[in-house]
Amino acid sequence: MSKGMFHKMLDGNLPMPNAAQTLGAKILEIDCKKGKVKVEFEAKEAFTNPVGNIQGGFLSAMLDDTMGPALAVTLEDNEFAPTLELKINFIAPAVIGKLYGWGRVVSKGASVCFLEGELFQEGTLIARSTATALIRNFSSSAKKQDH
Amino acid sequence: MSKGMFHKMLDGNLPMPNAAQTLGAKILEIDCKKGKVKVEFEAKEAFTNPVGNIQGGFLSAMLDDTMGPALAVTLEDNEFAPTLELKINFIAPAVIGKLYGWGRVVSKGASVCFLEGELFQEGTLIARSTATALIRNFSSSAKKQDH
Repeated sequence: MSKGMFHKMLDGNLPMPNAAQTLGAKILEIDCKKGKVKVEFEAKEAFTNPVGNIQGGFLSAMLDDTMGPALAVTLEDNEFAPTLELKINFIAPAVIGKLYGWGRVVSKGASVCFLEGELFQEGTLIARSTATALIRNFSSSAKKQDH
Repeated sequence: MSKGMFHKMLDGNLPMPNAAQTLGAKILEIDCKKGKVKVEFEAKEAFTNPVGNIQGGFLSAMLDDTMGPALAVTLEDNEFAPTLELKINFIAPAVIGKLYGWGRVVSKGASVCFLEGELFQEGTLIARSTATALIRNFSSSAKKQDH
C-alpha cells in the first residue's frame, strides 16, 4: 500500500483492508517521516477466550496492524515489506471494547527493518510487540515465491 | 478449561470458545499426557491483507489457539496458564482456506512452561511459534489483577 492509500483511509475515502476491518481498525494519526501510526481497534465478543478476556492472538493481530502500517507509510509505491518475525509480551488482560495502539519504525535499513508497537485499553498497557520486516520491491520479488 | 471440556469439544458436545470459533477452529486430536493438540482452522476472507493473503496477526491467533490448548489439556481443574510471551516466524504466505496446526508443550515446570507450534497449508509450513506461559491457580490468582 502506498502513502496515498493510507491517507485516503485516514480521511475515510478508502475502506480498510479486510483483516483491519475485522479488528475494527481505524487509523487516527500517520507520521510518514518518522514511520509512526496511531490506530483505534474494537475488541469484539468474537475475540474472547473462555474467561471472557480478549484472546492473545487477536491482540497480536492488532499489534501487527499497527507496526505494519507504520513501516508501510514510509515505503515507495513499488515496495512492500512482509513481516518475518513478530514477538508479543502480554502485560494485562483486555476486555470487550476499544483499544488504542501505536506502531513505530525503530530502524529502517536498505532492506531490514525493526518495528515496535504498544496496545492500550483505558490507559492500561495491555501488550507490547517488536517485529522484523524485510523491504522488497514488486519486480524483484516476482522471482521468489516465499515472501 | 479442564481436560474434560476439551474432550467434549473434540466430540462436538461443547461449543468452542468465541475466539476459536472466529478462527474456524476444530480440535482434531488431543494427547493429554504429552500436552499436544492438532487443530484445523478456516482462514476466511475477513482475515486478508491488501494483497489477499492471510494477515500475519490472524496466523498468530491460530498458533496461540494451538499452543494454549496443548498446555491446557495437561492442567488441573483449578489451574489456568496465561501466555506471557509469544513469538512467531512467518515462513510462507497463507491464502483463504483450511490450515492445520499443532501445538506442543516443550517443557512444563511447577509454574513456567515453554510451548511451540506449527501451522501448515496444503503441506507447506506457513508459520512457526514459541510461547512462554505461567501456571496459576484460581485461588492464589484472586490476589493479583495483572494475569
